[in-house]
Parts: sequence; structure tokens; C-alpha cells
Amino acid sequence: MRIAELSRTSGVPPATIKYYLREGLLRPGVRTHHNQVDYGEEHVNRLRLIRALVDIGGLSISAAAELLTVLDTGSLSAREALGEAMYALGGRRSPVGAEQQEAAETDVDALLTRRGWQIGDESPARHTLTDVCAALRQLGHADVLGVIDDYAAAAEAVAAVDIGLVRDEPTVERMTETAIVGTILGDTMLSALRRLAQEHVSGMLLSGDERKG
Amino acid sequence: MRIAELSRTSGVPPATIKYYLREGLLRPGVRTHHNQVDYGEEHVNRLRLIRALVDIGGLSISAAAELLTVLDTGSLSAREALGEAMYALGGRRSPVGAEQQEAAETDVDALLTRRGWQIGDESPARHTLTDVCAALRQLGHADVLGVIDDYAAAAEAVAAVDIGLVRDEPTVERMTETAIVGTILGDTMLSALRRLAQEHVSGMLLSGDERKG
Repeated sequence: MRIAELSRTSGVPPATIKYYLREGLLRPGVRTHHNQVDYGEEHVNRLRLIRALVDIGGLSISAAAELLTVLDTGSLSAREALGEAMYALGGRRSPVGAEQQEAAETDVDALLTRRGWQIGDESPARHTLTDVCAALRQLGHADVLGVIDDYAAAAEAVAAVDIGLVRDEPTVERMTETAIVGTILGDTMLSALRRLAQEHVSGMLLSGDERKG
Repeated sequence: MRIAELSRTSGVPPATIKYYLREGLLRPGVRTHHNQVDYGEEHVNRLRLIRALVDIGGLSISAAAELLTVLDTGSLSAREALGEAMYALGGRRSPVGAEQQEAAETDVDALLTRRGWQIGDESPARHTLTDVCAALRQLGHADVLGVIDDYAAAAEAVAAVDIGLVRDEPTVERMTETAIVGTILGDTMLSALRRLAQEHVSGMLLSGDERKG
């Protein structure tokens, strides 16, 4: 199909398709002997994956591009693929005061020790978690840190399910795609489920004491 | 303090502070008799809260503004405050084909029934969850939907902790702030914990079968 039909089928405007081609998120089409460029079903599928990561997962184009590069490498071991997909996302850095930063590093080290989690020093998620802890301390919400073990236990339950999904896939390429889709769209799913569960739990618990303070 | 000192103390550039003032995220300073504008500690704290929601929580300025409006209302009941804070975030919409949309609505209805969650029809999280389910179906990853009950159980455990934190706060204003900070920064914390737990679990499970497919 030509770019106009690719646009109709995928719902992505031609200018956006050309942008993804330039940025390497989408592989080039095949040039036919009529000097036209032909796109196939794999381009439709890739466009859907890009839009899902960006629109549903909330990723930036550059973060999506990094993950798709991992996916396209295709020759990684299962464990490498998982690790690369997770590490490619990196983390937002938001420096706070040195004092909070140091206390937050201690918070995270202590948590990892309590749970027995073996984590690389360069893990972006470790840096992100440290930043969140530092921000909570700076905002005067260190009370949230008091329940971090409960959150970590829930995260471990989720991760065991995640890894099970990935392990069940038949090929490394499919494992990598499931790791990416399951983690990114899964984050959005889990945050929606958390809000629904909050609505349910608060409806049950708070109906008796509406006015407080 | 004047705006230059407010900028130094908070680390937020003066142009950004003026933007927040125009957009109503930050209350105006007090005009002194020297015709200067004076800012106080509450402006420093508010700027830190805005930056945490945006930099750590990944919110847009407009989403942060909506949550802060809820916070500033200050006269809500505990349950209303929680609900408003959650609903104000809304959800990204990403329309997919009608067929996937219908199947996804059935997925979500069935899940809510199985868990006995009472959720309003207008819940933004319900729409977000439906969009995620539709995208997973369209991408050929309906296998993730097979474990949604496990994710929902983890989300319910998290929500019970969330609501406990909020209930322990002494005033409605503080309850609302904890609901906002705990939910938004908590999302980032939970996604970081999930990645750390994935690294830990995959390290344990996959070390024996590196090459697959």
C-alpha cells in the first residue's frame, strides 16, 4: 500500500508517518519499479504499537524510539531483552537538596536490603525511586515512605506475574515485545486499576465519616 | 522575599514562576507599600509541589493545575476530596476500532463484577482501563488481559494502603494533599518498584535458561 492508505488504515497522519520514518521508529517501505514506496501489514502493526506506547503509555517519542531499538535488535537473550527494555526507559531526574538526596539513598538501600532485591548500581529505576523518596521528604510527606514496604510487596506480586507472561512467549522477539507492551501499557493499566480500587475502598470505608477536620 | 529570591530558593526560573502565576497554579504575592510584591514560605512550598507533580509525577501543567484547584477548594468532605483528586486527572483517550472497544468494555465490566468494585459510569480511570484493554487486543497482546485479575488484586492491596494514609491525616486540606501527592508521586514510585522487582525476579528465574527461541 502507499502512504495515503497506510495513513487511512492506521489512523496516523502522513506527516506523522514521515516523522517516524525520519526518526527511525518505522522501517522504510520497499521502493517498487514504478518508483513508488510500498508499505505492508508490518508497518500498520508498528504504527499501532508506537501510538499505543505514546498515547496510552504516555511515553515521549524518544523513549518509544529507544524501546523499539531494543525490540529491533532481536538477538538478545531473554534476560538481556528484559533488562534492556527496562533500562532503556531511564528515569526523570529532579535534583533536590543534598540532605534529602542522602536520606533518600539510605531509604532505598534499606528497602532493597529488607526485601533481598539484587539490583545493579546503574538501574534507572533505582535512581527514579531515590528521586521520589527525596521529593516526598522535601514536600513533608515522609509518611508515604512509612508504607513503602507494602507498596514493594505489591510490586513484587505484579513483577512475578509480568515475568511469567514474558517467559510463556515462544520467541525472544515476542518476549521482548511482551516485556515492553506489558510494562508500559501495564503501568497505565495498574494506575487505572489503583484509582478504581481507591474509589471502591474509599466508598466502603469513608461512607460513615464524611466530614473530618 | 522578592521574585528573584523566590527563584533562588525554589530553583524555579523567574519566567516559569510568572507563568505559574498567570495560569493560577501559584497564588499572587502581597503588594507592599513600596509597590513591590512579596512572596512567602507558602510560595516556596507550592513551587516544590508543582515541580514534584510535573518532574517526578510526569503530569502536564494543566493536569497539575486541575489537582491544585481541588486542593485549594479546601472545603470538601474527605470522600469528595479523594474522588475529586482522582477524577481531576481524567484520562488519555486513544480511540481504536469499534470492535476492540466493545470487547474491551466487556473486559472491564466483567472485571468490576468479579471483584465487586462499585465504580461510577463517569470514572476517568474506567475509561483509561477500557482504552488499555482495547489497545492490548489491537496489538495482539490479549494475553496480558489473562492476568488482569492478578493485577487488580495487587492494585486493591495498594489502594487499601493509600486510603489508610489519607485517613490518618488530621485535616481535610492535608488529606487532599496526601491523596494527590500519594497518588501521583506514588504512581512513579510503584512503577519504579515494579521495575526493580522485575529485575530481581527475572534475575532469580531466568539465570538458568538464558537462551530461548
